[in-house]
Amino acid sequence: MKRDLTIALDAMGGDNAPGIVIRGAELARVRYPDAKFLLFGDQMQLNPLLKSKPELASVSSVRHTADFVSGDEKPTVALRKGRKSSMQLAVNAIRDGEAQCIVSAGNTGALMAISKVTLRMLPGINRPAICALCPTEIGDSAMLDLGANIECDPDNLLQFGVLGAAYVRTVLGIEKPTVGLLNVGEEEVKGGDVVKKAAILLREPNLPFDFKGFVEGDDIGKGTVNVFVVDGFTGNLMLKSIEGTVKLYTEYLRWAFGSTLFSKVAGFLAKGAFKRLKARIDPRSYNGATFLGLNGIVVKSHGSADGFGFANAVGVGADMVKNGLNKIITKEIASYTEQRSKMSEAAKTDVL
Amino acid sequence: MKRDLTIALDAMGGDNAPGIVIRGAELARVRYPDAKFLLFGDQMQLNPLLKSKPELASVSSVRHTADFVSGDEKPTVALRKGRKSSMQLAVNAIRDGEAQCIVSAGNTGALMAISKVTLRMLPGINRPAICALCPTEIGDSAMLDLGANIECDPDNLLQFGVLGAAYVRTVLGIEKPTVGLLNVGEEEVKGGDVVKKAAILLREPNLPFDFKGFVEGDDIGKGTVNVFVVDGFTGNLMLKSIEGTVKLYTEYLRWAFGSTLFSKVAGFLAKGAFKRLKARIDPRSYNGATFLGLNGIVVKSHGSADGFGFANAVGVGADMVKNGLNKIITKEIASYTEQRSKMSEAAKTDVL
Repeated sequence: MKRDLTIALDAMGGDNAPGIVIRGAELARVRYPDAKFLLFGDQMQLNPLLKSKPELASVSSVRHTADFVSGDEKPTVALRKGRKSSMQLAVNAIRDGEAQCIVSAGNTGALMAISKVTLRMLPGINRPAICALCPTEIGDSAMLDLGANIECDPDNLLQFGVLGAAYVRTVLGIEKPTVGLLNVGEEEVKGGDVVKKAAILLREPNLPFDFKGFVEGDDIGKGTVNVFVVDGFTGNLMLKSIEGTVKLYTEYLRWAFGSTLFSKVAGFLAKGAFKRLKARIDPRSYNGATFLGLNGIVVKSHGSADGFGFANAVGVGADMVKNGLNKIITKEIASYTEQRSKMSEAAKTDVL
Repeated sequence: MKRDLTIALDAMGGDNAPGIVIRGAELARVRYPDAKFLLFGDQMQLNPLLKSKPELASVSSVRHTADFVSGDEKPTVALRKGRKSSMQLAVNAIRDGEAQCIVSAGNTGALMAISKVTLRMLPGINRPAICALCPTEIGDSAMLDLGANIECDPDNLLQFGVLGAAYVRTVLGIEKPTVGLLNVGEEEVKGGDVVKKAAILLREPNLPFDFKGFVEGDDIGKGTVNVFVVDGFTGNLMLKSIEGTVKLYTEYLRWAFGSTLFSKVAGFLAKGAFKRLKARIDPRSYNGATFLGLNGIVVKSHGSADGFGFANAVGVGADMVKNGLNKIITKEIASYTEQRSKMSEAAKTDVL
């Protein structure tokens, strides 16, 4: 069955909107020739940009609004005052069935608040999580939560496991994903109460993944598991320190090759190697974090993304639509919930 | 005034003990010609190793014990059963004034437990923190806690600020260090209750550092502040994901330069650049985490350190002894405590 693929874009979100949104959509159109775009934003700015891209224009509709959510707006303010913001209208398009996913490079907190209120959770999920892929020695792994939930309880962490596993199954095609719970050590005695209790839940039988127990911070680079589960406070700080380390290393590399004339020449000869390296660590290739657990597909692009990066974020959304991610998650959560209530019924019978 | 510098070494701690301990001590002896060493461990193994290093042997005494703490021993077991372990005896040497610092590459949890019970806290400090230096774009910064305290309250985080500031002042010679509190965003509304309350405490006047508010994960690479304060759960996961990222990047670099014959040749010509790079990112140069807040100087080396790495850990301890770190911390905590009680007295008077 061919699925509709209409993508709602918050054309006014991000540091370089709407320019990068249009450039990103044009690049995504080439990769997804059956995609249509709904662009929410200021038509005075959008129409001239579309004029120079007739092929994109032919598969796009502009929905005019002058309002937008600024980068430093508090989520609560964005929710209350921004009823006609490009972000809110773009999310409405998912709720109303006009589009199958929405991509925004705008304010993360506002996008999460608007999405939660407008789309609600999938049945059986208490809180959405921000999930992204990260490169490892042996392929990509998913990591969540990256900042939606500062504090998490064991049930949240269990649900993140289910969400992350469904995500890598659909997006990376891994049949039975492995899941690890990030902690300060691998031994069962390590960590606080929340991770210990979460580990017990994650070990329950019949979950749609293979739980590998506790994993540590350096397991991410090694790709020890397909899904790394962590609370949003720690996950956000880890993700950003990984990004910072990549920048620092690149800086050092530039310095090492720029120190002497000889190494400059060597660096010039190594242009091919550097190009390969760049392609592999380019953060733009990893742009596009997903809000998992919502009743609708929401993708957040980095605020500073360029067109290439934004196109990758659009691709993340398009792939999830094509693979029917949310149907899979709903099915898995339902089957797990049923399993659990059967188990607790059985436990009651045993007692009697 | 010339200070005594006797260093107690847990000669049996670490993956490659006692060989790397002896090699590390020999390297450290060259850098600290006035240092003396107390080696705790199995004389049957230590004496032959020392025989081949007569200069080290001339400034070392071996204190024989056959017991040692294994890498996977629970801290409580190490404490209870390990009264004669090389680790416990080496820590005792600090308590008894026989040595000014102790270095171990053994089990971190056991070393922390033994150190806390044997040495106790400095006055005014509730909990010790693990602190290490990390490289940044503009020099080194300190980060703590790296795993001693899974859960922290606002007072702990404030004390980590005081401890970290005293550390960089003595070890890096920074007169008025800047301190940042790691959080998921820079705005005051971000984060949970603990970091918000800690930020209020850290903003109090007359603290011996300049508090810069919240900082994010990528600020570490940038070196935005001299001291990064964080709870031990998050700090440990961040540190290890930074280490993992450095390894992953190095792996990618090797791959990029090994992909074609041409890039192999370029890589050969770039040997000098790679050497400079390696010197800058070598984790061995950053070996040696300090347990701050204890009434005694305790340094933990990576368990897998080689002689060069272990010598650096010895250097961390030696520098702290030479600079009288714990006296500075005690003075600063006392002055801050006095300040605070005056403030609360004044507040009472105001109310009356």
